Amino acid sequence: MVVGGDAAGMSAATQARRLRTAAELQITVLEQGHDVSFSACGIPYWVGGQVAGRNELIARTPAEFAAQDISVHTGTRAAGIDLAAGAVVTEHGTRFGYDTLVIGTGGRPTRPPIPGLDAPGVFGVHRLEDGAAIRTAIDAGARTGLVLGGGYIGLEMAEALLARGLAVTVVLADPLPMQLLDADMGERVCAGLRAMGIVVHTDSAVREVLLDGDGRACGVRTDGASYEADLVVLGLGMGPEVTLAADAGLALGVTGAIDVDRSQRCRDHPEVFAAGDCAQTFHRVSGEVAHVPLGTHANKQGRVAGSVIGGRPARFAGVLGTAVTKVGDLEVGRTGLCTTQAEEAGFAYRTDVIEATTRAGYFPGAEDVAVKLVSERGSGHLLGAQVVGGPGSAKRIDVLATAIWAGMTAEDLAGSDLSYAPPFSPVYDPVAVAARAVSRTEQG
Amino acid sequence: MVVGGDAAGMSAATQARRLRTAAELQITVLEQGHDVSFSACGIPYWVGGQVAGRNELIARTPAEFAAQDISVHTGTRAAGIDLAAGAVVTEHGTRFGYDTLVIGTGGRPTRPPIPGLDAPGVFGVHRLEDGAAIRTAIDAGARTGLVLGGGYIGLEMAEALLARGLAVTVVLADPLPMQLLDADMGERVCAGLRAMGIVVHTDSAVREVLLDGDGRACGVRTDGASYEADLVVLGLGMGPEVTLAADAGLALGVTGAIDVDRSQRCRDHPEVFAAGDCAQTFHRVSGEVAHVPLGTHANKQGRVAGSVIGGRPARFAGVLGTAVTKVGDLEVGRTGLCTTQAEEAGFAYRTDVIEATTRAGYFPGAEDVAVKLVSERGSGHLLGAQVVGGPGSAKRIDVLATAIWAGMTAEDLAGSDLSYAPPFSPVYDPVAVAARAVSRTEQG
Repeated sequence: MVVGGDAAGMSAATQARRLRTAAELQITVLEQGHDVSFSACGIPYWVGGQVAGRNELIARTPAEFAAQDISVHTGTRAAGIDLAAGAVVTEHGTRFGYDTLVIGTGGRPTRPPIPGLDAPGVFGVHRLEDGAAIRTAIDAGARTGLVLGGGYIGLEMAEALLARGLAVTVVLADPLPMQLLDADMGERVCAGLRAMGIVVHTDSAVREVLLDGDGRACGVRTDGASYEADLVVLGLGMGPEVTLAADAGLALGVTGAIDVDRSQRCRDHPEVFAAGDCAQTFHRVSGEVAHVPLGTHANKQGRVAGSVIGGRPARFAGVLGTAVTKVGDLEVGRTGLCTTQAEEAGFAYRTDVIEATTRAGYFPGAEDVAVKLVSERGSGHLLGAQVVGGPGSAKRIDVLATAIWAGMTAEDLAGSDLSYAPPFSPVYDPVAVAARAVSRTEQG
Repeated sequence: MVVGGDAAGMSAATQARRLRTAAELQITVLEQGHDVSFSACGIPYWVGGQVAGRNELIARTPAEFAAQDISVHTGTRAAGIDLAAGAVVTEHGTRFGYDTLVIGTGGRPTRPPIPGLDAPGVFGVHRLEDGAAIRTAIDAGARTGLVLGGGYIGLEMAEALLARGLAVTVVLADPLPMQLLDADMGERVCAGLRAMGIVVHTDSAVREVLLDGDGRACGVRTDGASYEADLVVLGLGMGPEVTLAADAGLALGVTGAIDVDRSQRCRDHPEVFAAGDCAQTFHRVSGEVAHVPLGTHANKQGRVAGSVIGGRPARFAGVLGTAVTKVGDLEVGRTGLCTTQAEEAGFAYRTDVIEATTRAGYFPGAEDVAVKLVSERGSGHLLGAQVVGGPGSAKRIDVLATAIWAGMTAEDLAGSDLSYAPPFSPVYDPVAVAARAVSRTEQG
């Protein structure tokens, strides 16, 4: 039995089915929405018009899962879990018994208690229906858009609205966008946004959503100003959706997400697994518990749960919080600990920032790229990395994520054998240049 | 004293200067050509017209080095090394005494004993003069080009000639281009070349260069056929240029390149260093000696020599032979051991090939990419990797190179935290998909 038919839940179902036949294991998925296995990360690109249709965002339909003997009930909201009896109860009172349960209820978009936030004209970016609603608003003539929040989703929605010809304003409570970047790198992002015509108001907590005579959102008010717009998009981050688990009495961790062991198992209820945005996880570098809602983790955690359920031992290996995004030609990548996180985790760290180009300096299309490394003083171990630059920058974060994953030092990475050809990088890749900057000074 | 003013030599000079002032260490570089510190790898792009001028390929001029108190003598060919006296003698008899010598004589393009190979109309791709000569021939009206050899340089020159509007034929003695790829991946490259209109003749050793009435190359003859062309370009690979070292009595290794220890020092002559294409090195995975002429290695080995000379211990960490190239929209990357190399090194290995896309399948510009992994049976350690695909494919080899460098297993990599966003990759990056394919079957 799986509750929640998105990345984590469907990965668990699919992996368990790979290992166990329908005769051995019956798999049922309850999903409150209309779609399973869809790409929430693709919504901004559907809104922006780069992806043609909503169906393209649906990786697999319930019918395709049915062909694998995975029974999916869409439009079926689980209202309660009866742990003692081993059953999930739907909002309409139907009981589904289970031997093993996977909770994949996902994330809940952060909705601070701001008056007017529930008004029509204020849009989330969570379900395909949200994307459809924004598209409808744009098609109906919206010319100006306000995005609240400056994380990945906020910035991707800003790009999407810009692509559709709207005048876009981003309003942030924080001093800079992308709080998982250090301030110096966040400033580069902020400057990039402004250079492409996006108005960015920082240090501007929204106090109220302004409503027109019809009760529809027409702007927001901060302490210092009011901003009008035809539509308001929420990109205020994501918390864990744990209502069902908490009501059932499953333990939550300090992050507020469901507490699980490394096999994604609830500690007091070994027959219950949780995976994805609703589950607590741990950081590979700090070893500390963490809640990092990203589709990549959800997929992998779901697979771990599915493997264990299918009879093959598996353990989730932790997260670095590796992520990439783009806004127009500005690309951003980050992995591991930023300085705030390194500080909190008690590391003695140093930072190095280098500027380089994505291709040989003389090659057409060579773009500026800045690479920042956070490394442990003394040992030289890489703790985290951030990349901001033009096209070709972001995916370089994967090299740094791999190096951090493997426990490499900056000196190891500086000496490693990365590829070079003029259309692809300078003779020393920007990643290696950054690693050299650390290792050179660390050696004195 | 440095002999050879290209990547290895100038890296050694620059690094030594960083660590020692002009008062502490006098640095003199002898270079037989007119340029130092130029990008030989950029020549195809200059010929192809993507890079505007030859000066763009020159990273630094002798005057710029002089400003760093590095004295460069261009047009000065070293004719002999007097190891006993510690002196280099030029072809005109001038003696330069040294306390420490760095040999960076580079590579020598392979020139098999084919009649006519020295005729006008046959071009190397080694010095900037070679590029200039090919450009002149094209500007003078060449309409057809023959490229001999299917390695990086050969294929990049094929692209360059195609870009200039020539009809291009590649003639290979080998059964496939890119001998450092496995046959199945080489076939993908071969198919890609043909799809873009390049004629490829494989298993076709050239027996003779055909000459016109003026003694100028006008084609080649293989055992089975003759091919006419206005110009012939040599891309037959690169051996070590060791004449000077061998004549002086310095030991060569089994690869034919100068034998050095991990500090780039000649074992019997600790006052002499060698770095770059003229020096033997070792493979990081197999531990075996190797000769892998690439600019990346030359730069790093030069730095190691310069560090040691400057008084800071340093060791070269080995090569994986990581390399990338492109021909039109076809991108190729490779690192570590291909199956032939794994076999020779005595590994029990397995191979896995997966096909994926460079971006989310629904995202515009998603291109097919194939990833092949060579891994050790039992341990699952990654030994080598190859990537062939559309734009966005090649640089993914750096993630695999980093994983191999760090000694990761396929399972480690499959669990690692690589980035995802629809414009950059599917939710599981192709690299992770390949690693999963290994780890899944390796587990049974």
